[in-house]
Amino acid sequence: MSINYPNGKIYEQSPLNTPKKSNLLLFGKRGMSLEDDINASNAFYLANNVAVIHKKPTPIKIVKVDYPKRSAAVIKEAYFQTASTTDYNGIYNGHYLDFEAKETKNKTSFPLSNFHEHQIEHMKACVLQKGISFVIIKFATLDKLYLLPSKTLLTYWDQQNKDGRKSIPLKTIQTEGFELQYTLNPVIPYLKYVDKMIEHL
Amino acid sequence: MSINYPNGKIYEQSPLNTPKKSNLLLFGKRGMSLEDDINASNAFYLANNVAVIHKKPTPIKIVKVDYPKRSAAVIKEAYFQTASTTDYNGIYNGHYLDFEAKETKNKTSFPLSNFHEHQIEHMKACVLQKGISFVIIKFATLDKLYLLPSKTLLTYWDQQNKDGRKSIPLKTIQTEGFELQYTLNPVIPYLKYVDKMIEHL
Repeated sequence: MSINYPNGKIYEQSPLNTPKKSNLLLFGKRGMSLEDDINASNAFYLANNVAVIHKKPTPIKIVKVDYPKRSAAVIKEAYFQTASTTDYNGIYNGHYLDFEAKETKNKTSFPLSNFHEHQIEHMKACVLQKGISFVIIKFATLDKLYLLPSKTLLTYWDQQNKDGRKSIPLKTIQTEGFELQYTLNPVIPYLKYVDKMIEHL
Repeated sequence: MSINYPNGKIYEQSPLNTPKKSNLLLFGKRGMSLEDDINASNAFYLANNVAVIHKKPTPIKIVKVDYPKRSAAVIKEAYFQTASTTDYNGIYNGHYLDFEAKETKNKTSFPLSNFHEHQIEHMKACVLQKGISFVIIKFATLDKLYLLPSKTLLTYWDQQNKDGRKSIPLKTIQTEGFELQYTLNPVIPYLKYVDKMIEHL
């Protein structure tokens, strides 16, 4: 079953999105969705006392709830709401981390339309408060994964109304970001590159 | 309309929980729920570039969604889930903040049963990562509000199986925490006491 968010994006139920066993053996957990991979990485970091990072639940507007006798409350009418922040945040050795994960099928650039104004505003506010803010971008067709500091994204975002460029070139992401290689544990070792961001604070 | 969570707690819809205008004039926004007061305070801090703190949405397990033509997706069956973290987190001038807000009708102590094991585990993990972890406790009957650093809560939590004490005495909260006074903006100026926690880091 796939569920569409109001913005037309597919909401994927994790259990139905599990890869075939053969993929698991060959590629660790690589067959899973980017969200599943990041959640698995965060679970690994948490279990090993490395960092406490969680995905925020999707905000939902509840309209109607039933209370059947002797069983749990059932939400009977509710609607997806647009999040006012990024999806992930938490703490890593005294540093506040805040990030968003996005996938694209594009091959040469990452479209800025993947972000909402309020997410950008949130990133700017986090940067202002000295947080570590970044995006994990998956180029699905190329099978490439990058960590891009928000600074670059925010520059492109603010320039789009001036120069008309509505995407970040892959080359820029390769130069100003870090390529992430899948490993077994954690699946996506993104904190290695967060360390590099911290070095340059 | 009031909606019950599976744990029996009342889920209050904010618009229906708004105080009468006379209360607003006399006491700022004091007639609202503790959650509303904290959210209003966080909105004030955000608007003034002081801190970026958000309440996490309640996690919900979605089972069934309808897609009416030309209108938003409607969730038709869903269930409340237990959160694996505290309700609030964010960043304040380079510091990761993480807290929970709780109300009690007790007059002399705060029952530990207000917390779940996973919330306590989360607080411990945050403290380990050098985060600022605390609880905002409202003694509703006494009309008193306190900020208590997690350290005290965690000590009482870990001791309860040894000494059998299932609550934190109000006197301890007054000695080891900080009394919060309501103000107009922000409604609950809790960052003033977070500053004191930071001083003692």
